[in-house]
Amino acid sequence: MNGEIRIVPIQGIGEILPGSDLGLLLFRAMQAQQLKFQRGDILVVTQKIVSKAEGRVVHLDEVQPSEFALAFAQEFNKDAAHIEVVLRESRRIVRMDHGVLISETRHGFICANAGVDESNAGGARILTLLPLDPDRSAGKIRARLQKLVGEGADFDIALIISDTWGRPWREGQVNVAIGVAGMAALTDYRGQSDPYGYQMHASMIAVADELAGAAELAMGKIDSIPAALLRGYAYQPDTGSGKTLIRNPATDMFR
Amino acid sequence: MNGEIRIVPIQGIGEILPGSDLGLLLFRAMQAQQLKFQRGDILVVTQKIVSKAEGRVVHLDEVQPSEFALAFAQEFNKDAAHIEVVLRESRRIVRMDHGVLISETRHGFICANAGVDESNAGGARILTLLPLDPDRSAGKIRARLQKLVGEGADFDIALIISDTWGRPWREGQVNVAIGVAGMAALTDYRGQSDPYGYQMHASMIAVADELAGAAELAMGKIDSIPAALLRGYAYQPDTGSGKTLIRNPATDMFR
Repeated sequence: MNGEIRIVPIQGIGEILPGSDLGLLLFRAMQAQQLKFQRGDILVVTQKIVSKAEGRVVHLDEVQPSEFALAFAQEFNKDAAHIEVVLRESRRIVRMDHGVLISETRHGFICANAGVDESNAGGARILTLLPLDPDRSAGKIRARLQKLVGEGADFDIALIISDTWGRPWREGQVNVAIGVAGMAALTDYRGQSDPYGYQMHASMIAVADELAGAAELAMGKIDSIPAALLRGYAYQPDTGSGKTLIRNPATDMFR
Repeated sequence: MNGEIRIVPIQGIGEILPGSDLGLLLFRAMQAQQLKFQRGDILVVTQKIVSKAEGRVVHLDEVQPSEFALAFAQEFNKDAAHIEVVLRESRRIVRMDHGVLISETRHGFICANAGVDESNAGGARILTLLPLDPDRSAGKIRARLQKLVGEGADFDIALIISDTWGRPWREGQVNVAIGVAGMAALTDYRGQSDPYGYQMHASMIAVADELAGAAELAMGKIDSIPAALLRGYAYQPDTGSGKTLIRNPATDMFR
């Protein structure tokens, strides 16, 4: 029987700087709101604070745009330095139309602007880039938190790094998982039978994406809540990887 | 300040038949688990039980496949009657490759197999079709529930009808909203300022999709839980429509 799931926003983390100990800041913020990790908790952390802590930021003023970036920016009234950074973060352009750049990042993710975002850091013109290896980032934060909890090797929590992306066909953005540690990002129901003895055949659920989206509901956009705790979802323990959420090119008809 | 959100699975709804009073069955199932609606609750109901209650089912044995359906089915070892029903529910084929049919439904949704699903009803070879007008279905169930609650005109709850769909670029399926009543499906942060005085420019969040995905986490696939209650999310009251989640063709580069 499935039980209730709770989503709790984590507040008061404060400004993140390059080198910030994110695990410690998250742990302290949870302590400050009387929140203790329990076995099986999932912490969702937004990409933006992970990128900031890892120094994955670029000052727009320091970027020298290429001719290609300049031409595209001029045609669509965009910032050439911003376009240049998106190109540098991309290994392939999927679409380049109406002033929108959809590209495949070096990790293999397909998203708008290669995940490059203008940041709200102190009013400066700064871009945040995706972490170089979001799974590794997730693993590090998770390991730090598990150590701070100090419960021993069998104390299992999962960690998801989320980002806010658009989708083809559907309006609006949703939070998705780009880095995962400690749980299987996909739950595979294929081959199992439902209560009527009927064989399920196409049910591989991207639970890490659903968890990231659920966390967004508690975060909002304006209130600067960069993390949320999910409790009560029985994830499947696993090394975990956001890369398992990248569709196999052989079955992807839109790449 | 954002607070905690709870996701509560609704169990024990039982078998749904054409003409079933879904609002009443959901209300009774909630009562049986000591769960009372509160102002601002959101109920997510899966498409499958809505379609069954509305008689949107087709017996595969009664379908006469066209030549076109027969040829496609034969090439990819599919059921021709199933393909025929998908074609009838489609107004346009977006992709037809590797045996996969991505089409635009008569509502304008783009998804695999026009949302046609093999059902687990009693072991028979039955397909469920999407509701003819999912917003209308959502509105009807919501109105019925509000009447059963009997709290008066200012008692506001929202209702979402969800379905489980795949996505380009990303592996696995997620729950999305196809019918919405009582809340805005999108939350528009554009033009607002964040805590640093920074203007947000591309943040329209598809909260109805995130709510549908969050509900899926409490439902699972095998346990036959066709509804979940979400409490604590401050939605924006609105007539609501799942159609607002259909991307404007002018900005959709993948249709």
